[in-house]
Amino acid sequence: MTEKEITKKDLEALYSINGLEDVNSFIKDTLKSDAPLLQEIPQYLLSLGGKRIRPILTLLCAKAAGQKELSKELIHIASGIELIHMATILHDDIIDNSSLRRNKVSANVKFGTSNTLLAGDFLLVKAFGLCGLLSDDIVKETESACVALTEGEILETPLYSDNHNIDSYINIAKKKTASLFSLSGYTGARLADCDIEVSNKFKMFGENIGIAFQILDDILDISADQEKLGKPIGTDIRERKPSSVNIFWLESNLKSSDFLRTEPNNNKNEDLIIKELVNEIKDSDVLNSAKLLAQKYANLAKNNLEEALNASNNKDSKSANMLKLLVEYTLSRSI
Amino acid sequence: MTEKEITKKDLEALYSINGLEDVNSFIKDTLKSDAPLLQEIPQYLLSLGGKRIRPILTLLCAKAAGQKELSKELIHIASGIELIHMATILHDDIIDNSSLRRNKVSANVKFGTSNTLLAGDFLLVKAFGLCGLLSDDIVKETESACVALTEGEILETPLYSDNHNIDSYINIAKKKTASLFSLSGYTGARLADCDIEVSNKFKMFGENIGIAFQILDDILDISADQEKLGKPIGTDIRERKPSSVNIFWLESNLKSSDFLRTEPNNNKNEDLIIKELVNEIKDSDVLNSAKLLAQKYANLAKNNLEEALNASNNKDSKSANMLKLLVEYTLSRSI
Repeated sequence: MTEKEITKKDLEALYSINGLEDVNSFIKDTLKSDAPLLQEIPQYLLSLGGKRIRPILTLLCAKAAGQKELSKELIHIASGIELIHMATILHDDIIDNSSLRRNKVSANVKFGTSNTLLAGDFLLVKAFGLCGLLSDDIVKETESACVALTEGEILETPLYSDNHNIDSYINIAKKKTASLFSLSGYTGARLADCDIEVSNKFKMFGENIGIAFQILDDILDISADQEKLGKPIGTDIRERKPSSVNIFWLESNLKSSDFLRTEPNNNKNEDLIIKELVNEIKDSDVLNSAKLLAQKYANLAKNNLEEALNASNNKDSKSANMLKLLVEYTLSRSI
Repeated sequence: MTEKEITKKDLEALYSINGLEDVNSFIKDTLKSDAPLLQEIPQYLLSLGGKRIRPILTLLCAKAAGQKELSKELIHIASGIELIHMATILHDDIIDNSSLRRNKVSANVKFGTSNTLLAGDFLLVKAFGLCGLLSDDIVKETESACVALTEGEILETPLYSDNHNIDSYINIAKKKTASLFSLSGYTGARLADCDIEVSNKFKMFGENIGIAFQILDDILDISADQEKLGKPIGTDIRERKPSSVNIFWLESNLKSSDFLRTEPNNNKNEDLIIKELVNEIKDSDVLNSAKLLAQKYANLAKNNLEEALNASNNKDSKSANMLKLLVEYTLSRSI
């Protein structure tokens, strides 16, 4: 199993695409409020950095589908999707009771649950204020994506209380993670004047890259360097999450996976146990199975992209290549 | 100080206005989701009942401003505003850590914080999916109202950590409570084809009735029958909230109000202390000051209504009278 290696230059090219700076400035400008904390909390989150993969995807899909000049609407929707993503991070930190994000204390710990909850609502509302000004089909797609986000979160019940399998995992990943990637693909194409049929092909491309992205997140929870990951290794094990890795582990013959069926008990020994379990998973074939699944969805994404490009009138091959690079990056990323 | 007495028949007339049943059915139909809990939690909230004052206001403003037939859009926006209100109830219950609502356990206690948070997000998103299909000015007004909601909540810091006065109280009440009332007035008029100038007059009417409504909430926290109120009397005292009643209490010469400057300490004696404080407030002039303030805003609302009606072309006097009745109801309500 080999994947194309992503050079530092490739990555720089991705992060210097036209429009990304506008998105970053626009997001900052949007975060104005009479209540100081509603500015401060999102700004704190921004200061922790982030991959900005959703706006990159939106901008590149628009360009690949033939948009010649950056429109105000494209910057707005790309920013809106990132604002929704930021809102889900704030609310997720409350739900998961996370204390660390990118090696810094989470907003939840720093500002308290109530303020963090309200800041998440603020971002969601700001995002909808942007998307609501666009065409009715974009409003409906945004609503569907956000409904899917909440559904995915609520369906992601721990493995000690519910059974999950790869099918239910994919359903949850589609909703929880891939929905905003799909929205990026769809809206990018729509704002490049593609019709709904062609835009739906970009949407499918987004969905499959999003699923691959989530599987990589699951893998990195085990295989990453903790300093780079910015939070403890093995969090998905600790939370008994129905991640792809955990499901493959349960489906393997490794008795150790019984751990996932036990309720968390705040046992101080758990840190040590999880360290051992992480090593056991690393020594097994579990991560390989997850990697193969990620590749399957990356390949589907590539096929979707070909189809989408073939169907669009004004495709731009440079951006198309950047999108292929984005698929490779999704598979090879180390954070 | 007298107010017009609202008869049972008046109240029945308010609750039998054309369109309210459609709003109730539409809200129920909207709450479909692949995730059972996302249906169950809002349905639980609906089962607790509610005054539906925001959709009533929206429908009546539209009618008073001359809308002859109920439009689909009017039902959608009236429902959307109620959905936003429901979302804030769910998120508020988390923020206030409330355990009782209308004599039943709050959603937060029954379904847990994470599920309640996500159900609130779900309702917010559903509401925006409805409002996003309407005109750009309605999208912007909805965004502003929802931003104000979060600002009002976050600015409402307890009296032991911040100073508040009646001016800051009115600013918070405008944001936290009156913003959805303003939105009801504005959108009702807009959907009755009023121009933005006339709609802004209905918006001001909504704002002032909303402020009066909030002041009555503050008064009822002390004066209501606990069984009718559905939650403990004196909750605003316990939480050291910057309510109008608490601010008037602090501004009075009653030494007992020093309690509001102390941090909550989960002292079991606090129940008894609060009972005594409630009686002391009842014996003082504090509630009277709050009542006068509510009347001031109710009078402003009546003037706004006259102005709004004078400015609209096709006003309907029956609905105009119902709106006047709604102002009286706001002042005289016992829950």
